[in-house]
Amino acid sequence: MRDVSIIGIGQTKVKEHWNKSLRQLATEAMLKAMQDAHADHVDALYVGNMLSGVLGGQEQLATLIADAVGMRGIEALKIEAANGAGAGALHMAYLAVASGAYDYVAVVGVEKMTEASNCAATAATSMAGDADYEAMLGISPAALAALLMRRYMHEYDLVAEDMAGFSVNAHANAVNNPHAMFPRPITREAFVAAKMIADPVNLLDSAPLGDGAAAIILTANDNLNGNRATAVRIAASTVATDALSLAERKDPLWLAAAEKSAHKAYAQARVKSEEIDLFELHDAYTILSTLALEAAGFAERGRGAYLSRDGDITPRGRVPVSTMGGLKARGHPVGATGVYQAVEIAQQLRGQAGKNQVANARVGMAQSLGGVGATAITHIFTN
Amino acid sequence: MRDVSIIGIGQTKVKEHWNKSLRQLATEAMLKAMQDAHADHVDALYVGNMLSGVLGGQEQLATLIADAVGMRGIEALKIEAANGAGAGALHMAYLAVASGAYDYVAVVGVEKMTEASNCAATAATSMAGDADYEAMLGISPAALAALLMRRYMHEYDLVAEDMAGFSVNAHANAVNNPHAMFPRPITREAFVAAKMIADPVNLLDSAPLGDGAAAIILTANDNLNGNRATAVRIAASTVATDALSLAERKDPLWLAAAEKSAHKAYAQARVKSEEIDLFELHDAYTILSTLALEAAGFAERGRGAYLSRDGDITPRGRVPVSTMGGLKARGHPVGATGVYQAVEIAQQLRGQAGKNQVANARVGMAQSLGGVGATAITHIFTN
Repeated sequence: MRDVSIIGIGQTKVKEHWNKSLRQLATEAMLKAMQDAHADHVDALYVGNMLSGVLGGQEQLATLIADAVGMRGIEALKIEAANGAGAGALHMAYLAVASGAYDYVAVVGVEKMTEASNCAATAATSMAGDADYEAMLGISPAALAALLMRRYMHEYDLVAEDMAGFSVNAHANAVNNPHAMFPRPITREAFVAAKMIADPVNLLDSAPLGDGAAAIILTANDNLNGNRATAVRIAASTVATDALSLAERKDPLWLAAAEKSAHKAYAQARVKSEEIDLFELHDAYTILSTLALEAAGFAERGRGAYLSRDGDITPRGRVPVSTMGGLKARGHPVGATGVYQAVEIAQQLRGQAGKNQVANARVGMAQSLGGVGATAITHIFTN
Repeated sequence: MRDVSIIGIGQTKVKEHWNKSLRQLATEAMLKAMQDAHADHVDALYVGNMLSGVLGGQEQLATLIADAVGMRGIEALKIEAANGAGAGALHMAYLAVASGAYDYVAVVGVEKMTEASNCAATAATSMAGDADYEAMLGISPAALAALLMRRYMHEYDLVAEDMAGFSVNAHANAVNNPHAMFPRPITREAFVAAKMIADPVNLLDSAPLGDGAAAIILTANDNLNGNRATAVRIAASTVATDALSLAERKDPLWLAAAEKSAHKAYAQARVKSEEIDLFELHDAYTILSTLALEAAGFAERGRGAYLSRDGDITPRGRVPVSTMGGLKARGHPVGATGVYQAVEIAQQLRGQAGKNQVANARVGMAQSLGGVGATAITHIFTN
C-alpha cells in the first residue's frame, strides 16, 4: 500500500445556509481545497453525506457534485454511514489512493439540514438508529443519548454537571474559529440552566445540527512536490462496527466499535494513545465524548468525564479535544462532520490553528461515529 | 495493485418481498455467497443501496447488515450512486482488496421497494435525477427515458417496435432463471400492445422495480486456494460520470459516461469490445440498452436497436445481453441491480448458466447506470 497524505483542505462556515444548496456548499469547500492543494484536477471524488435523499430529494449526489465543481466525467460515489459518512468517504479515498488506482482523490463531506422538503430534521437523524426496533418507536438520537447518560450517571455516581466541561471547552475554542456555528463562550452556569431536551440531556449537552461542507484532497506521498511543507500524512484509517440498537449491545456503556477502530488505528500508525497530541472526537452529546475517551484508552471506565472537569481537554491540556469547537460549537452538519474533523486536525498539524493551536502538535486523531457509536471511523494523522 | 477475483456469489429471487425486510434479504444473499466461497469471515462489507433511508427510514445500512449476518464489528460502509449503487459498492470492494488493506471483502446489493413507509417508489426513483432542475418538475425516470426514446426515433427514423427485441430476449432468458421476477416469455405482439407509461415508453420497454439482494465475496488472487476452479477474475473496474440533468448534456443521445467507463475498462483489462462474450447492460428501458450498446462500441450511432432486431443479443448471438433476464425480466431492485449483473456474469464464466449458457464464455462485461446514464460503472470479468 502507498503512503497517503492530505495536500488540500477547505470548509464552509457551519450555519443555517438558507440560501445555499447542497451543490453550492460542496462546490465552495471543494474549490478551496483544490486551491489549497495547488491542484486543478482529481481522478475521483468521494462524497460523505447521510440525508441528501431523505431531506433534499437528491440521490446520486456525488455525480451531481462532480459536475457542479467543473469535473464532469470523473469517478464519483457517495458513502453513507449515518453521521460517520464523511469519515467513511475519507477512508474510501485513502484506500483508493493507497491502492495505486488513483493519484489524486477528493473527499467532500456535505449536509443540508435546513430547507428540508420531505421530512423533519430530527426524524431524519433518527434513521441512524435501527428503523424496525428503535426509530419506529420514536426514539430519537437525543433519547438514545439520554438513556446512555442516565445509566452512566447511575453507574458512576455523577451528575449531569460533571460533563459541562466538554461544552465549555468546545465553545471556548469555537470563539477563534471563523467557520464555527456558535463562536461564543458559554459558562458552567449556563450549562446547568440550559433547557432540557431529553432528560438528562440538555440543549448544551447536544451539538447543533447545521448545514456545511468540508473538503480534502489526497495524494500518494510520491506526488507531494510543492505540497511537501503543508502535507499531513494519514498514518491510519480504520472502520469498526457494533449493533445499531443499544438494546442489542453487550454493554451499552462501552463503545465497542470506537474501541476496536481506535486500537486498529494505533496498531496501523504504530503509536500509543499517550502519543496522540489532540483528539477530535464525536461530541454530538457530552456522554459520547465521555465514552469515546474511555473507548480510545484516554481514561479508565467511569473516568472519562473527569478529563473534562480537570481541564485535560483544553488546547493546553493532556488530551485536547474539540480544538476548533467540535460538533458542539463548530456545529454538526451530520454527514460532513467527519471531514471537518480531519480538516481541523490538518490545521493543527500544519500550525494553522491560530489561538487554538496545540503546541508542538505532531500526531492527531479523529474519530467519527455513526449513530450512538454503531459505526466508528478513526484516522490518525502525522506531520 | 493486487489482482482480485470473485470467489462467492449469492442472490435472492427478485419479487415483491412483502414479508422480508432489508436485513433479511441482505442476509439471505450474503450467507449464500459465504457458503459458495467456503468462507466464514470477511474483513469488510460494502453495501450498494439507493433508497433505504427514503423508503425504509433506515440509514447506516451497512452496519446494520454486518450485524444481521453475524459479523458485528467488521468494517461496513454503504455506497450510493442511484441505480448504480451495487456496482459502485463492487468497485469500492475491488479497490479495497487491490490495495492490500483487506484479504476478504463482501459486497451486498440490496433494495426494498415494496412496503415503503415514507414515499412512493416512483417519486423515490426520481431522486436519481437532478432534484432542483428535473425531479421538482415531476420528471420521473420513465419520462426522461421517453424524451430520449422519442428523440432517438426521430433522429434515426425508427418506430418503438424496433426496440421490442430487447424485451423479448430478456423475457426468453428469464424463463430459465429461478431468481427472475417475470420468468415468462413475451411476444413482439404483446410488446406492441403494452400499456403506455410515458409515450413512447410502454410497460414492456420498462424494467419492473422489485425487492432483492445479491452478494459477492472477493479476495486477492494469492488467496484463491480451494476456490481456484470457480474464481472469476475482475479484469477491470471503472466509474465515469456525466451531468445528471439531460438538458445539461452536450448530446442527450450519447451516453458519455457509459462510453468513458467502457473504454477505460477495455484499456484496464486489455481487451477490445469484439472480445466481450456477453454484456450485462443496464436495460432499465429499451432506449438505454440501445444507447449503451452504441456507447460501448458494439454498434454505430443510430444502429444499437438493430442488434436487438437481428438476433445478435441472444445467448447464441454476437453480443449476448440480459442473459439471465436483465433488469427487464429478472427484475430491477434498484441499488442491488449492479451486483445481480456481476453474479450473473460469474455464473456464465463458471459455466453455471444452464439453458442460457453462452458457449465458451471467457470474457464478460457488466455496466450499471445511475439515473439515465449520469453515472456509469463498468466491470470486465474473465475466467
